[in-house]
Amino acid sequence: MPHQLYAVIMAGGSGTRFWPASRRSRPKQFLAVAGEQSLIAATRDRLAPLIEDDHILVVAAREHADLVREALPGLPPENLLCEPVGRNTLPCVALANAEVRRRDPDAVQVILPADHVIAPAESFRESLAAGAELATCSGALITFGIRPSHPATGYGYIELGPLTGELEHVSAHEVAQFVEKPDQLRAEEFLRSGRFLWNSGIFVWTTAVITAALEASAPATWKALRDARPQDLEQIYPGLQAVSVDVGVMEQASDLRVIPIDYTWSDVGSWGALADLVPSDGDDNRLLGGGSMEAIDAQGNLIYGEAGMLTALIGVRDLVVVRAGDALLVCARNRSEEVRGLVERLNKSAPEHL
Amino acid sequence: MPHQLYAVIMAGGSGTRFWPASRRSRPKQFLAVAGEQSLIAATRDRLAPLIEDDHILVVAAREHADLVREALPGLPPENLLCEPVGRNTLPCVALANAEVRRRDPDAVQVILPADHVIAPAESFRESLAAGAELATCSGALITFGIRPSHPATGYGYIELGPLTGELEHVSAHEVAQFVEKPDQLRAEEFLRSGRFLWNSGIFVWTTAVITAALEASAPATWKALRDARPQDLEQIYPGLQAVSVDVGVMEQASDLRVIPIDYTWSDVGSWGALADLVPSDGDDNRLLGGGSMEAIDAQGNLIYGEAGMLTALIGVRDLVVVRAGDALLVCARNRSEEVRGLVERLNKSAPEHL
Repeated sequence: MPHQLYAVIMAGGSGTRFWPASRRSRPKQFLAVAGEQSLIAATRDRLAPLIEDDHILVVAAREHADLVREALPGLPPENLLCEPVGRNTLPCVALANAEVRRRDPDAVQVILPADHVIAPAESFRESLAAGAELATCSGALITFGIRPSHPATGYGYIELGPLTGELEHVSAHEVAQFVEKPDQLRAEEFLRSGRFLWNSGIFVWTTAVITAALEASAPATWKALRDARPQDLEQIYPGLQAVSVDVGVMEQASDLRVIPIDYTWSDVGSWGALADLVPSDGDDNRLLGGGSMEAIDAQGNLIYGEAGMLTALIGVRDLVVVRAGDALLVCARNRSEEVRGLVERLNKSAPEHL
Repeated sequence: MPHQLYAVIMAGGSGTRFWPASRRSRPKQFLAVAGEQSLIAATRDRLAPLIEDDHILVVAAREHADLVREALPGLPPENLLCEPVGRNTLPCVALANAEVRRRDPDAVQVILPADHVIAPAESFRESLAAGAELATCSGALITFGIRPSHPATGYGYIELGPLTGELEHVSAHEVAQFVEKPDQLRAEEFLRSGRFLWNSGIFVWTTAVITAALEASAPATWKALRDARPQDLEQIYPGLQAVSVDVGVMEQASDLRVIPIDYTWSDVGSWGALADLVPSDGDDNRLLGGGSMEAIDAQGNLIYGEAGMLTALIGVRDLVVVRAGDALLVCARNRSEEVRGLVERLNKSAPEHL
């Protein structure tokens, strides 16, 4: 009998980059930014039938527990793990590993963020299944790398090592190195070389292997969380080191494999990135969220509206226009990454709008 | 004793050009588009102390009666004349003339739209006083012409005739002709010639003179309204010819004078025109209406917001952004005259947003 497959959906992001649609009280993963569904619901649906709700754990900020329940009504209550404060992804992985280990120490785990867009879902499930098989037979930590479509400077990269031969039908490589976000010039070199993939933040490993890796690389965090009960987390979490699983586990480990992904993937990092993912009308305008649009000689605009609300455009190009609650954003589409800086400014000048 | 001076404020406009701030239910004259006050309240205040509330008549659409009362709380109730349907300005002038004539057949009347911006108020009162004196001594219909600042194609023009000598201290001309809105080329000729003024739609006349002019040029309308009681208007108005006082009276008359105005005047015909009237912040951005603004590298934008609402701009230039109720307009500033066409489209596609 094959090992049981579990998924851990990491839903702890605070999502300031989609302000004003995303708010402290409702980060991006709980918004339907890229379709009819919230990103977290789409993430869950993408897993079925490979992994069903009873084998899905969601790790989220405690303040967003109701949003998770609303988005995933089929999730068993005990499968929602709440963090009292955010400490990046390593504690999240350790917390989930402790829970999976109690349920099934032989389980294989898929770790994935709640707020990515990936298509087609079937190809993704095939990748995950291949990863699970490889994790089991190799005993390595498996990560997925995205074949770059352009010289992006907003992602970390994974340099490919040699092809490994554990499984004939899975094209997996050793990991030569992880590389931090490059500048434009290096990103162009990476793209040209063909040897670098974007770091997706999606992982597969067996429970035994990640347990050993945590014991080796993050012993304090693992020891604190290994046997913790939910009611203990309030005490424990503030003292944990905030570190990503990439830095705290993957970069410390030696036995790694990377499986390339060459279908549609996006971490939907900005309004501009989102615009690239959504089909447009005949004038290259896109309407998301809700409401309606009327455009006169307007092209290349991304409108995020609200139910019942009309957005009218006259003679404007390449804008991101987001109306949400008490705030309105009008932003040049190629500058939407500056929303993050805007939110920092508002944090000082007008926090009531965050 | 000099003749009593009355003002007739014409507040019947439907104001589609300021959509979505102006709505069918609240046209532009009832909005504070150019300052703290609504345009109609500013119009009234501009008249004092030359003309006080008891001598001010307001003609408005019946459906806007409450808006007039709200904007002008000092207006005596009997000074509000309601039209059951709009029939352009000639019936409005005739209706007001009938009322003034009942009160004081020797009165001199100032006729002015509710939705203009004029400054300084003192200069304007001097012009009106001069017009009243000229109207009394000359027996002519007096109009005011705006010295053009640019070759506008959106206004009718008045060609100046010879200077008249009735009053030494008032520089008034005969009217050579009224000219419809010109094309760009003619507008440039008009500007160069120095002989053409914009038709302001502001008039002064004695009650006897306008009565005679109405009898001569619009006998049916005048006869219908001369002795009408308010309760009769429902029956009468639908049958009246819809025509402007410019076309129906001024262009038919021979004894006319025009007094030039060379201070700030605007009929605030579009969002773009409004932007030219309002002081800007250091980045040439303007915030009107209400709410707050946060701008990163944004210049030349006009924001019309709502109380409690934040508008954030990143990297955008020369936009008009209007958030009002269930609609949002984002428009290139130099194309704001196309709002009128947009409203016509919405009238078919989404009248619920008008």
